[in-house]
Amino acid sequence: MFKSQGPVGLKRFSTAEATVAAAGKMREKTLTMETLNPHVKAVEYAVRGPIVTKAGEIERDLQEGGKQPFTEVIKANIGDAHAMGQQPITFLRQVVALCTFPELLDSPTFPEDAKKRARRILQGCGGTSLGSYTASQGVDFIRQDVASYIEQRDHGVPADWENVYLTTGASDGISILRMLVSGQGSSRTGVMIPIPQYPLYSAAITEMEAVQVNYYLDEDNCWALDINELHRAYQAAKQHCQPRVLCIINPGNPTGQVQSRKCIEEVLHFAYEENLFVMSDEVYQDNVYSPDCEFHSFKKVLYEMGPEYFNSVELASFHSTSKGYTGECGFRGGYMEVLNLDPDVRAQLIKLRSVQLCPPVSGQAAMDVIVNSPHPEEPSYARFHEEKNAVLGALAEKAKMTEQILNGVPGIRCNPVQGAMYAFPQILLPPKAVEEAKALGMHPDMLYCLRLLEETGICLVPGSGFGQREGTFHFRMTILPPKEKLKVLLDKVRDFHIKFLKEYATLEEQLR
Amino acid sequence: MFKSQGPVGLKRFSTAEATVAAAGKMREKTLTMETLNPHVKAVEYAVRGPIVTKAGEIERDLQEGGKQPFTEVIKANIGDAHAMGQQPITFLRQVVALCTFPELLDSPTFPEDAKKRARRILQGCGGTSLGSYTASQGVDFIRQDVASYIEQRDHGVPADWENVYLTTGASDGISILRMLVSGQGSSRTGVMIPIPQYPLYSAAITEMEAVQVNYYLDEDNCWALDINELHRAYQAAKQHCQPRVLCIINPGNPTGQVQSRKCIEEVLHFAYEENLFVMSDEVYQDNVYSPDCEFHSFKKVLYEMGPEYFNSVELASFHSTSKGYTGECGFRGGYMEVLNLDPDVRAQLIKLRSVQLCPPVSGQAAMDVIVNSPHPEEPSYARFHEEKNAVLGALAEKAKMTEQILNGVPGIRCNPVQGAMYAFPQILLPPKAVEEAKALGMHPDMLYCLRLLEETGICLVPGSGFGQREGTFHFRMTILPPKEKLKVLLDKVRDFHIKFLKEYATLEEQLR
Repeated sequence: MFKSQGPVGLKRFSTAEATVAAAGKMREKTLTMETLNPHVKAVEYAVRGPIVTKAGEIERDLQEGGKQPFTEVIKANIGDAHAMGQQPITFLRQVVALCTFPELLDSPTFPEDAKKRARRILQGCGGTSLGSYTASQGVDFIRQDVASYIEQRDHGVPADWENVYLTTGASDGISILRMLVSGQGSSRTGVMIPIPQYPLYSAAITEMEAVQVNYYLDEDNCWALDINELHRAYQAAKQHCQPRVLCIINPGNPTGQVQSRKCIEEVLHFAYEENLFVMSDEVYQDNVYSPDCEFHSFKKVLYEMGPEYFNSVELASFHSTSKGYTGECGFRGGYMEVLNLDPDVRAQLIKLRSVQLCPPVSGQAAMDVIVNSPHPEEPSYARFHEEKNAVLGALAEKAKMTEQILNGVPGIRCNPVQGAMYAFPQILLPPKAVEEAKALGMHPDMLYCLRLLEETGICLVPGSGFGQREGTFHFRMTILPPKEKLKVLLDKVRDFHIKFLKEYATLEEQLR
Repeated sequence: MFKSQGPVGLKRFSTAEATVAAAGKMREKTLTMETLNPHVKAVEYAVRGPIVTKAGEIERDLQEGGKQPFTEVIKANIGDAHAMGQQPITFLRQVVALCTFPELLDSPTFPEDAKKRARRILQGCGGTSLGSYTASQGVDFIRQDVASYIEQRDHGVPADWENVYLTTGASDGISILRMLVSGQGSSRTGVMIPIPQYPLYSAAITEMEAVQVNYYLDEDNCWALDINELHRAYQAAKQHCQPRVLCIINPGNPTGQVQSRKCIEEVLHFAYEENLFVMSDEVYQDNVYSPDCEFHSFKKVLYEMGPEYFNSVELASFHSTSKGYTGECGFRGGYMEVLNLDPDVRAQLIKLRSVQLCPPVSGQAAMDVIVNSPHPEEPSYARFHEEKNAVLGALAEKAKMTEQILNGVPGIRCNPVQGAMYAFPQILLPPKAVEEAKALGMHPDMLYCLRLLEETGICLVPGSGFGQREGTFHFRMTILPPKEKLKVLLDKVRDFHIKFLKEYATLEEQLR
């Protein structure tokens, strides 16, 4: 492992300054890097890490007329659809605007189905206002709508709305992990996460002082989850911790794979046998592009495995307004469904969530539109589906294009982007580049991404921020930029990569 | 101390059920009360505790035609203004609705100043959409608007916008505490909090495994903060922990006092001398009713104390969209300003906040309206101030009425409600009632509030949920219900209290 480097771009502050006290008297700071909570210090979150800070600096420099070898920074570091030009779904925005300013309910410019939903949402709010706190679990009938949606999605598998908790995005839901962290030493809670993973998981584990247990996805097999590897990781971890939680991301982030039904059944069987609490991150459930793949919820598969599974495995699954076809990240809406929670523990969960009062109510409203979209007989049906299909159709096209262009570059190998919003290609880095990075105390793919940013204006996230097999290197890029811009981005990556390989080639290779 | 009782109203679940495994095979649950994170288990949060759960049950029963000795549950347990009928500020909602559905920017029904602000907010959002993530600290120019607002509020004391972080309500901001928790045993971080306190603080301290250090507010002196008591608490705590953080709530929650400038200066001097990180909860800064009181921000006083203070004391202060005259709780908007943070630690704070991506953008927009309200020359100025003054005027009236009626009840003593939204009267409970509660394993004021709820439909929070001096009893009530309803509530409390005193009087007292 390489030592992770300090944040780029915050250099104008120096530690020296920090300890200089005010005139006359030396007064130490209370909160310094020495006294900082060590678990906070240990947290890493690459998606908004040093590369992104640097990209922001370059962007500002460009705005102020600075000279760069490019005219625009293209940010493909984060799944932020609207920032990349994706348009909001009209119906969703209409409903939330109506809820925000109910005088509009009298306006003829809004369709009746949007008004109907807005009135219903407001009826569920204290004082019929979006400005009231809701129950900490969210508005009751929105939870009921979510349950109906889940039942429909899962072809009739029953969903109890009291198992549904609305959240502040999926990131907030994942804090349920806190409940599961206990024990000391070798009985400390181990949390199994895929590698590569979305770094929210490793960040939460670090901050909560749980033990991270890595299981590696199979890159040679389209990033599939290999049940043998899961067994291996579990057995190895048992030596030094108590694995109690199994995290799954399906469709995968950053890896873009969609798990097969068979694989999910194996995983659930394993969780059943080993008494693991399953956390299933399914925020990309609407983002499946490959015609050979289908989204199966962990819950549906659990149900199909029979009541001895369905009535016992503790399963929390997560969804969000931020992904799918809506891409409403800024609303911070989401939900989790939690199955088979011990009833006393359920009361504890409600208590814990109460401390933060409630998720943002406009996010709850947005979530309601997603789970209760226009019906065929309603006036907004056609437009809603047209917009939805346009977004998902474009993403599918871009997924294909990304894979094809990247696989055309020597030294880049990209699995099919079956789902989600990311490609996570492997990049072959010449030994000289790896050595140079080591000398700089930097991950080699960080060096690569920094150079890419500085030379082309393209902002990607190094694979090291997500985890990868020792000695392999990757980057994560979103497929969200508009098609033309994505093409430019991919072409630039190709040209950069070829140039990079040449630059770091051995003399022998250069002469070849 | 009395053992706290289990949650009321979740009785339909039994622990027995939880351990019954599915047909055929016994499979233990992973997450039980035994394996639950013990720090999560220890968290208490009275504002949404058992009384509120019970109130919800009674409310549902009434809706379903159940018979109760009253026709309506009146919830005065939580500072939830809109739920109590307070109307939103029109201008704020107009701006947020315009941001949500920008087609309305062409509509002649919206005033130009609202459109201007909405356009500006959208310019600050990626893809000019409220649906994009913002920077984790919030939209830059909204942070700049907050800084200008603070400068104006504090009569010119400089504010650096890079010290401003937008938050998901103030509750989220307070999680900065996590950074300060470190050390083991007698060097573990101690966090000084007022007693009575808003239980978010004790909940956070418990969950983060810090040491709670109580300093008692002076009930006989209008709940003022007594500097000698602060010294006492600090010295006592030094025996078993390292006090590093001092929390202040001003105006007070649940106690409603407004701190004098002199008191604030003493507190800041103390924090300076003892190297404490100050967390100043100022979410009620616009809620000052008593003509003898004025809000002084901790920051302004720190500035006035001179550069040796202003440039060294680490101070985080919190504000929110939820209180003041807007009462927009559901938007989950807020900010914190953090002074004198070590620059390396600042980078850590930004990293930590990045993991949750960003605060809800509609909440950020709402916050922007509060700090950048209509100017005198703008079309919405008159209406905005009319609405604002109506809300604050009504609150001032209700603060006075609450104090007067409660002080007319034998056995109730209520300090003036100088600010915030709560009264926290002391209630004299007969020894027989105290004994009965003890026998039930219940706090005596919990017994009182439960009886009050069951007999009158009024939902208050027992003083034990906020902390109080041993042997004293209180309840917290909001002054938010509309005047007529508040009058009914107070009359019912009076009648109940007199009846309660009679019921539990000794034989001797009854014969008197």
